[in-house]
Amino acid sequence: MKASIVIIGDEILIGRVADTNTPAIASALTACGFDVCGVRTVGDSAQDIRSAVVCAMSEADIVISTGGLGPTRDDITKSVLKDIFGGELRHDASVAQNVERVFARRGLAMNDLTRTQAVVPTSCRVIQNTVGTAPVMWFEKDGKVMVAMPGVPAETRAMLPTVVDAVVERFHPCIERMRREFTVSGITESDLAERLAPFEDAIPGGFKLAYLPSPGRIVLRLEGPSSLFEGQAEVLLAYLGDKLAGEGVLSPAELLLDALRKKNMTMATAESCTGGNIAHLLTSVAGCSDVFVGSVVSYSNDVKMRVLGVEASNLEKEGAVSRDTVLEMVRGVRKALGASCAVATSGIAGPGGATEGKPVGTVWIAASTPDAETVRLYHFDGDRKAVIDRASATAINLLSTLLHEN
Amino acid sequence: MKASIVIIGDEILIGRVADTNTPAIASALTACGFDVCGVRTVGDSAQDIRSAVVCAMSEADIVISTGGLGPTRDDITKSVLKDIFGGELRHDASVAQNVERVFARRGLAMNDLTRTQAVVPTSCRVIQNTVGTAPVMWFEKDGKVMVAMPGVPAETRAMLPTVVDAVVERFHPCIERMRREFTVSGITESDLAERLAPFEDAIPGGFKLAYLPSPGRIVLRLEGPSSLFEGQAEVLLAYLGDKLAGEGVLSPAELLLDALRKKNMTMATAESCTGGNIAHLLTSVAGCSDVFVGSVVSYSNDVKMRVLGVEASNLEKEGAVSRDTVLEMVRGVRKALGASCAVATSGIAGPGGATEGKPVGTVWIAASTPDAETVRLYHFDGDRKAVIDRASATAINLLSTLLHEN
Repeated sequence: MKASIVIIGDEILIGRVADTNTPAIASALTACGFDVCGVRTVGDSAQDIRSAVVCAMSEADIVISTGGLGPTRDDITKSVLKDIFGGELRHDASVAQNVERVFARRGLAMNDLTRTQAVVPTSCRVIQNTVGTAPVMWFEKDGKVMVAMPGVPAETRAMLPTVVDAVVERFHPCIERMRREFTVSGITESDLAERLAPFEDAIPGGFKLAYLPSPGRIVLRLEGPSSLFEGQAEVLLAYLGDKLAGEGVLSPAELLLDALRKKNMTMATAESCTGGNIAHLLTSVAGCSDVFVGSVVSYSNDVKMRVLGVEASNLEKEGAVSRDTVLEMVRGVRKALGASCAVATSGIAGPGGATEGKPVGTVWIAASTPDAETVRLYHFDGDRKAVIDRASATAINLLSTLLHEN
Repeated sequence: MKASIVIIGDEILIGRVADTNTPAIASALTACGFDVCGVRTVGDSAQDIRSAVVCAMSEADIVISTGGLGPTRDDITKSVLKDIFGGELRHDASVAQNVERVFARRGLAMNDLTRTQAVVPTSCRVIQNTVGTAPVMWFEKDGKVMVAMPGVPAETRAMLPTVVDAVVERFHPCIERMRREFTVSGITESDLAERLAPFEDAIPGGFKLAYLPSPGRIVLRLEGPSSLFEGQAEVLLAYLGDKLAGEGVLSPAELLLDALRKKNMTMATAESCTGGNIAHLLTSVAGCSDVFVGSVVSYSNDVKMRVLGVEASNLEKEGAVSRDTVLEMVRGVRKALGASCAVATSGIAGPGGATEGKPVGTVWIAASTPDAETVRLYHFDGDRKAVIDRASATAINLLSTLLHEN
């Protein structure tokens, strides 16, 4: 049973925003047994929207689109869909009520333009948007289904379970192929590929093994026919051995929180160049509060001294980006926040701030547990975001490794 | 001059990762005068890659692809491109040297699989990848260009300027249409549309005005023929009046940092439910260190008391998610970190943690300046990520508003 996605919006084609709706929709459909065969991204042009929807309908049983449903004049999806699926535009009282309810909850006043949200093609069935004003519209033609969803990511995520339930109810996809993912750590992609070569050589037809590497871990995805699947998964697990960190896609933050929880330990972070991103990654994991106690983002030297107890003499002698400072930070935050473990970062994320011998990307990272302490110097490639992301992931992995080894 | 993008990878079609390469490539091409007409996302299937590349080549002068160039067996792009553009696979000594250099810098050992990165089609010109091992490959056919780039986002971002320079050098696109963006704040999308209705009614043919709303601001994008563009932009600016926050796409964090800088003030954050995300948003802005001094992420009550001086009696009586606690947090962090302004958050991001009268999404936010203080209760819709994102943006906007009003 095939599915296809159409993403509508000039803002994506000019590179203004990243498309986060595709991963949400694709993973929900895949989990129910649909095979997502492609994604088409088009601008706010009637001709391009029409052509993308028609092509997608020709290759798939179910098409989900997002975007182009707002009240402003650049949104033309509704009239294109009316042309494809027939009928006229009509005013829908239940949508109007919903728009009023959403505006009232936000404490905003309605105007005439907002009221046009209640106009929908007669050829669609409306699914009420519980968190926004643009209605979800369900169309059917020649035994195929197209669902037009709003483009605001939080609205897409909120409405997706309802839409997916309705699509499953309509098509009852059978899960002919299975897929399991495994998070692997402590091995490079190339070494892992060598270790798994005999497994890949002997794997039956129809199976696929994909490597999704990222700093600190590799996710392996095994996919194949349901009938043979579990047997092959068992063989793969035997090859992975102690390099298997867990089933599913575990983030470095999840791996670390799990390791600390097993040891009944807590942690804190002291962040200079990562600016709170490590704390953000840890607190993005639901249920982190039994392990993560807090963080001090010490962007200024003054805060490093005041809250973390870094010595002024150290800062003057070696600068904030130094071995001694990051060690004082990691010790200081464990004490100040009463945590059993901690990580600390101090570096130059750029683009400014480089000094003689300390180019952009220079980052000192320290990790500390009740039993061990480690401090290392790194040089990360890339722009400000890349340096922050890599330093954050590296700090998390450094504490994971320290916990594992001691 | 038209451009088209092809994104390759099963991991995107099953929703495992978000595609961040498209925004980077699309914005770079758009800025040089290319019109990005579409994005095709396909899985690691030879047939789908071939069909996407061929279709993209038929509609555009320049096609840029990412993904499918790694050393593992699921990467088949190279042989598909060899089939489309002709020639054979050959070993390239300069790529082999580059792979060794990258591995040496990362402190990793090479293996045979990594060495296959140096195999490229004879029909391509190689552009050396300065931060990773997969080479960039430049193909030409029938006066059109296709550039295959690696899929790792940091590598795509690092190599993009080189690729775009080469593409501009090859095609010399002329900028027939212009585009400017304006960040607007303090007005709803609907009210803005009503205010701009006369402007939109009178706008000459070939112009487009798009609304890109997000919490705290709306970005307006005006696009049109170069000859008439500046005149229309002036008219639009007159309609916007004092609702214009600045030219370009300014994030709420940038808006806040600018406002503080103008007043010669500094700021700190005290974060419970937002878990460091506000600090992360602020420190993602290059050059923030003259304004942002630091943050205390007080995830546990113990840290709220220890570092921020929140009274135990308050926490016991009203709980951490309360007016009094968030006020003590915002005052405490200003004092502890020596900042002139601050924001504080305390709430329930979910999915767990809800209590009687405090459902998931309940967030108290406080903002404080030397002249004023404000505290408010919010109820945010959506999942954990949505609550964290919205609470963070709201806190930033709350301090911006407080600065503006006082």
